Amino acid sequence: MSGSGGGGAPARPATGGEAVAAGASADWLDAVRWDAAGLVTAIAQDADSGRILMVAWMNREALAETARSGRAVYFSRSRQRLWRKGEESGHGQAVRELRLDCDGDAVLLQVGQAGGIACHTGRESCFFSRWEDGRWVVVDPVLKDPESIYK
Amino acid sequence: MSGSGGGGAPARPATGGEAVAAGASADWLDAVRWDAAGLVTAIAQDADSGRILMVAWMNREALAETARSGRAVYFSRSRQRLWRKGEESGHGQAVRELRLDCDGDAVLLQVGQAGGIACHTGRESCFFSRWEDGRWVVVDPVLKDPESIYK
Repeated sequence: MSGSGGGGAPARPATGGEAVAAGASADWLDAVRWDAAGLVTAIAQDADSGRILMVAWMNREALAETARSGRAVYFSRSRQRLWRKGEESGHGQAVRELRLDCDGDAVLLQVGQAGGIACHTGRESCFFSRWEDGRWVVVDPVLKDPESIYK
Repeated sequence: MSGSGGGGAPARPATGGEAVAAGASADWLDAVRWDAAGLVTAIAQDADSGRILMVAWMNREALAETARSGRAVYFSRSRQRLWRKGEESGHGQAVRELRLDCDGDAVLLQVGQAGGIACHTGRESCFFSRWEDGRWVVVDPVLKDPESIYK
């Protein structure tokens, strides 16, 4: 994965490239504020459309593999194991940029979404329900039948 | 707050407006999957630029007030109280759209960001550090000195 490009970020550091955590290769993982379960919030944003596709979790291993491979790898809390996005659905995510927030407890991925579908329901984004006058209304179409995705 | 417009969402429901949680006014809050601490992850996205501004938390009261007032209200875990975004900094967020994800454990706000600054460091976004070859590099400029924001 390249650290540059994508997400509308400036092509060059605007501050002269001040390093938050430089040095040995694992230091950047120590800069993340892992929660009590060893996890950090991970947000995937479509690098082309800007749409928020999903929110998931990463443990140290998942984040390290994501950076190394350039493919989004999460930690499934329900299955308690690494979840290489797309391993079953084919809807993998190529990571174009990776960012950390100011208090270190969330990472933001700019991704190229395979198939244009991130959600297990067959929709582009997991955020397909919109608040309207006191209820959640499904406003996004199913692009592909989940039964044909997970077979 | 209006439930329509903003965020590139379709002007009309694409599925005919299937209600996820209709009925009495508090039902929509019950559709949220609150964690053990009674919180849900909340992401603020700039409705104009599409940039992810910050990630925070909401409890039931914060989310209810956000929907009612049209102003982003979070729950500060460090201070253990409601945090009306902008109450100290002046950098409030007008909520143009509110969405819930497929498993109900994250909400996404499309906001108009006052002052164009969401981060307490005086930057537009809290995600100002980018991964580059094994380190986090600060790539976004400080738009306003924090000392002049919090005085």
